[in-house]
Amino acid sequence: MSEKKLVEAITSMDEDFAQWYTDVVKKAELIDYTSVKGCMVLKPAGYAIWENIQKKLDAMFKENGVENVYLPMFIPESLLQKEKDHVEGFAPEVAWVTHGGMQPLQERMCVRPTSETLFCDFYKNDIQSYRDLPRVYNQWCSVVRWEKETRPFLRSREFLWQEGHTAHATAEDAKERTIQMLGVYARFCEEYLAIPVIRGQKTDKEKFAGAEATYTIEALMHDGKALQSGTSHNFGDGFAKAFGIQFADKDNTLKYVHQTSWGMSTRLIGGIIMVHGDDSGLVLPPAIAPLQIMVIPIQQKKEGVLNKACELKDRLIQKGFSVKVDDSDKSPGWKFSEQEMRGIPLRIEVGPKDIEAGKCVVCRRDTREKTEVSFAELESRTGEILAAMQKEMLERARKHRDAHTYMAQNMEELEQIFAKNAGFVKAMWCGEQACEDMIKEKLSVTSRCIPFEQEQISDTCLCCGKPAKKMVYWGKAY
Amino acid sequence: MSEKKLVEAITSMDEDFAQWYTDVVKKAELIDYTSVKGCMVLKPAGYAIWENIQKKLDAMFKENGVENVYLPMFIPESLLQKEKDHVEGFAPEVAWVTHGGMQPLQERMCVRPTSETLFCDFYKNDIQSYRDLPRVYNQWCSVVRWEKETRPFLRSREFLWQEGHTAHATAEDAKERTIQMLGVYARFCEEYLAIPVIRGQKTDKEKFAGAEATYTIEALMHDGKALQSGTSHNFGDGFAKAFGIQFADKDNTLKYVHQTSWGMSTRLIGGIIMVHGDDSGLVLPPAIAPLQIMVIPIQQKKEGVLNKACELKDRLIQKGFSVKVDDSDKSPGWKFSEQEMRGIPLRIEVGPKDIEAGKCVVCRRDTREKTEVSFAELESRTGEILAAMQKEMLERARKHRDAHTYMAQNMEELEQIFAKNAGFVKAMWCGEQACEDMIKEKLSVTSRCIPFEQEQISDTCLCCGKPAKKMVYWGKAY
Repeated sequence: MSEKKLVEAITSMDEDFAQWYTDVVKKAELIDYTSVKGCMVLKPAGYAIWENIQKKLDAMFKENGVENVYLPMFIPESLLQKEKDHVEGFAPEVAWVTHGGMQPLQERMCVRPTSETLFCDFYKNDIQSYRDLPRVYNQWCSVVRWEKETRPFLRSREFLWQEGHTAHATAEDAKERTIQMLGVYARFCEEYLAIPVIRGQKTDKEKFAGAEATYTIEALMHDGKALQSGTSHNFGDGFAKAFGIQFADKDNTLKYVHQTSWGMSTRLIGGIIMVHGDDSGLVLPPAIAPLQIMVIPIQQKKEGVLNKACELKDRLIQKGFSVKVDDSDKSPGWKFSEQEMRGIPLRIEVGPKDIEAGKCVVCRRDTREKTEVSFAELESRTGEILAAMQKEMLERARKHRDAHTYMAQNMEELEQIFAKNAGFVKAMWCGEQACEDMIKEKLSVTSRCIPFEQEQISDTCLCCGKPAKKMVYWGKAY
Repeated sequence: MSEKKLVEAITSMDEDFAQWYTDVVKKAELIDYTSVKGCMVLKPAGYAIWENIQKKLDAMFKENGVENVYLPMFIPESLLQKEKDHVEGFAPEVAWVTHGGMQPLQERMCVRPTSETLFCDFYKNDIQSYRDLPRVYNQWCSVVRWEKETRPFLRSREFLWQEGHTAHATAEDAKERTIQMLGVYARFCEEYLAIPVIRGQKTDKEKFAGAEATYTIEALMHDGKALQSGTSHNFGDGFAKAFGIQFADKDNTLKYVHQTSWGMSTRLIGGIIMVHGDDSGLVLPPAIAPLQIMVIPIQQKKEGVLNKACELKDRLIQKGFSVKVDDSDKSPGWKFSEQEMRGIPLRIEVGPKDIEAGKCVVCRRDTREKTEVSFAELESRTGEILAAMQKEMLERARKHRDAHTYMAQNMEELEQIFAKNAGFVKAMWCGEQACEDMIKEKLSVTSRCIPFEQEQISDTCLCCGKPAKKMVYWGKAY
């Protein structure tokens, strides 16, 4: 294979963003397709990102008093049906188990598409008294939704996620926890994934099946489409009433608990790709990259080169960085292309001349900026460059989002914006679903959220012209 | 509730071991039963043990060059059927998915009972050249086996585990990896779980469906029954031939890969309970306990007591121990019972008199031995006591096992031993399955393994009297 082949094999983003995305997930060796339609293999490079997401997010959960548990993957049909809105939302897209071994089951079960009903069934016995509250439980698992159209990470029939499920004594406590976890999600996306997010509430039309209120964080991808990146639902006491989850309060009366749930999934990996990637492949933020630095020896067969490369690696590992040396037979140019395709944040080039001069070259994946770093300053300078990269990736993503965020006063403006651009459009809304429906029908855009940070763009609904109640973000979504 | 109630609620081990076990898993709050028959909830205390097992074992895997991946949970029926022995072994106990949403599937799929067939299907495309070998992949996931009789941790319809699946260029490499991973398992059980194990090979009758050879680690529980605690399978090129997994070798000829798989599961938690537990509840080895130390203040309302308890906790956390203070309203005696039931390795008692004397009392969960420790020596002495406890728990378990390991020269002796005792019996075997079948039929005991450490107990098979080939461990198993 020629050295250029690895790079040439990727479609450019501007030419065909969807194809570029598919090329990156394959060429960066994140996933493979399988014989099971709509399900993918997470290969080592892809799973390692998820492992890092799990590790960091789980630590944040634990700081927020979350305890991990594991519930069964099967939901008996009668259990799924206990909450009316919930079953209507999920029953059309679940996988049904009808036989165990050679025997038909007495009652068929679905593979969990989400576990509200299982947690309710569990909490019903687990919670007796106000002393048992709050329950702040989470599980890491896979769920199944039998989607017709699938895309790696963004929409697959099975995907990995975490789902938190909590129970509280009061409505206020439940609401507070819902917002608290949305805050954890937002901080995680910004600090680790360098993805800026809009925090807000979903309209009733877009909220979760069975929820009183759904909160969301919405991110903007490079192509101007939105990605719902994490959601947090306040159920009030709706599920508690459907399942009979009561506790004896301090005043000795029986009360229903108030519940929440919240989830993030491997979809985040799709977000990382589409926010940070470029025509050379993946670009991973240093804070989430499984491998942060690849040391690439130049003229590695010359005496001392490979030794020096390994010495630099060991010094950096000592300081807590994740580093490897690429000592394969390939040419340096080929190794550069691979490191770029895989999105490894930094590469360190070191050859005979560098060694003579007592320095190496540190090259950033995002900007390709090269810095000469003396061996004496290796650890400190590398740390600074990684920190700067992490910070600037978030800033760049924020600038991109802001540059693709528009305002519309009426339908004509909205139409004109979406005819020429892709992005978020801020516009006022009366609160009626009829307007939301019409906008979706006419322009194929949906309400992304009612942001917590409201602005007064005009006084009237962009659709019907009646008095406006809320500013809403509109956009096309994955 | 009276303070004794927590303890009284457990059946004693000697009276009814099975009931004792069930009492412990419930009272130590490890699991709960669910509406899905044969499936359990892993509650925070139970799941935290699994998290710790994952963390330590995964680190050992990574030291041994293992990479994590994730494959789908569904296996199309045609895929399951490709390896004849394998499908015969598993088809009778799988759960079948027949519908996706409202539509019947064109081909039904089972929920993975194990993933050999999925890995083969993946490797078939993933492996092309000798440069792609070895592949040393592992996944952490849940699997489903539709068992009729279930028991928490030991046998449930869904359970959590890890399954490693590797592919190699030669038969030697595959065999070496099989043994290597069995070694990892044995070290893990002994170093972290304080469970001594016998390493050996399964007889052909007991080996894994589709394997050339199955290796096992076998542990002895307190009641004298064996627990198969981890297995490692060498498949040779059997699966590769059934699935067509070939690679171009250095000599440019196409060859079949050689494969292995190996797994350990939440069953290990059952092993911890049954090896170390006592009539007061669970006893967790310090190296795997999610919470190692509970500080229990005496007369906590007296000035300075709670402060001192928290200070001790903070000092110990600083040193890397996992510690909490029980500052609940309950009496100290009640708190002691709870700490014992939950198996927390150490409790530290500290009251006004202790504070005056500048010391606290450290009490070991396993021996109940109490040590007065001056505040000045808190960290060092606590570390020593935990290390001694870990070491002695393994020694005690080894002594118990050795005291319940017997030898038999013939069927009469074997029968007499099992009439009076429960444990391992070492005996010589001719290698014929007929003898193995007869022993099982007559005494309901199975061959546990052909141990790597062979002894020459006699020259003839205990059953048929023909020349013996191997020494075998026999026992009743979970």
